Formats: sequence, C-alpha cells, structure tokens
Amino acid sequence: MNALGRQILAEIHGCDSNVLNDITSVEKIMVEAALRAGAEVREVAFHKFSPQGVSGVVVISESHLAVHTWPEHGYAAVDVFTCGDSVNPWDACNYIVEQFRAQNFTASETLRGVLVESNLSTEKAAI
Amino acid sequence: MNALGRQILAEIHGCDSNVLNDITSVEKIMVEAALRAGAEVREVAFHKFSPQGVSGVVVISESHLAVHTWPEHGYAAVDVFTCGDSVNPWDACNYIVEQFRAQNFTASETLRGVLVESNLSTEKAAI
Repeated sequence: MNALGRQILAEIHGCDSNVLNDITSVEKIMVEAALRAGAEVREVAFHKFSPQGVSGVVVISESHLAVHTWPEHGYAAVDVFTCGDSVNPWDACNYIVEQFRAQNFTASETLRGVLVESNLSTEKAAI
Repeated sequence: MNALGRQILAEIHGCDSNVLNDITSVEKIMVEAALRAGAEVREVAFHKFSPQGVSGVVVISESHLAVHTWPEHGYAAVDVFTCGDSVNPWDACNYIVEQFRAQNFTASETLRGVLVESNLSTEKAAI
C-alpha cells in the first residue's frame, strides 16, 4: 500500500487528572514522545483552558502529535501522525499512555495519503 | 452517544499545488476555516518544508485543525477536531476543500471521548 503517512487516534482513559491539567507536564510529555519516536520537533503550541484542560500540538518534520485533555473525566484524546519509515507512531503513543498513568486505552491506526490510481490520474489531469 | 468531540479526517486530492506550497495561503485558509465554522482560534503553528510542503495546526477552544500538504501529489491530509455543539467541523472541512481547489476528497467522522460505562467506572475507581 503506497501511503504517505500513518495516523494513530488514541482514546486514553483513567489518566492522572493532575498530569492532564498541568500544561507544563502535558507539553513536556508530548515533546518527549515525539523525540523518543525519532521525530524532529519543528513547532510547539499549547493552551491551558479555564477551569481545566489542556490542548496542544507538536508539529514535527514527519507530521504532528496532538492532545486534548479532560482532567474531570481522566480522559485524553491523542493523535500521532507520522510520515516515512524512520518514526514509529506507536512508540510515541505508548510513551504518552504510560506518562499519563492511564488505566486503559484504545487506539486505531489509519493510513493517510494512499495514492491510488484514480488520484494519480487526477494529478496527471490537473497538470 | 455521549461523546466529547467529533473528528473529521479528510483526504483531499487534485488540489492546486501552488496553494498547497504557499505557507501564507495555507495558514490563512486554515484559520478562516476555523472562524467560518464558528470556532475561537487560540494558537497557530505552521511550518514550510524544503523543497516543498506545508504542515500546520490551528488550536481552537473547541480542539484543533491540522493540515499536511504534498504539493507534488496535489494532496492534503486535513483533520478537523471539534467539541461542543456550536461548531460544525464539516463547515471547516468543506471550506478547505473549496479553497484548495480540490478535484475530489473523501472524509470520515470519528467520535472522540465516548464516555462508556466501563470508562466511567474506571474514573470512579481512580478517585
């Protein structure tokens, strides 16, 4: 399958609410997850909500990691999108799950940018 | 279904390569898409790659929008993740497709943060 990228959507439950509500911790964990997966960090943007919750994104050379936390539910939504063969998104995902001290999680992987014949034909037609 | 958010993953093909390779245009389109969907923009982080391609994220109060472009393939991977009932992620998605001058696209919607009984039980157990 000729895909440009892989994206993990992780539903992470039973997390430590104190971690999920601490923007410094969440940012540090997400950046470290990117680095541990072998990614190159390009841009970082995090935001703390009132009264609680953190949203943030780490743009990497190989795509991005995103997180949204609901401390009141012990829940975090995490995306890890990577391109190329040098970075394994599951390494980042597993590190985040561990650092959030999650009790359980589910995750699915989706291929992005599958260049099937019809799309390649479209590209040619667009030239 | 008690879900905290909705996420669209859009595969956008046959786009205008000049638009996809112009960081200013891509950022403007993504921010405008967020605003047109009724979202509140919090943080913006975009990066231009050499020789081509743009990656970027718009963190909104209601979650985020992300884009990665491959001008050489006329392809863009777009995510629109929103929470709450006031923002419709499809409004943002459709605007982006239009502005990228796409010839075709596919998109799927995934619910995020479905607080099923087992997860709620986990939360209680974690207290």
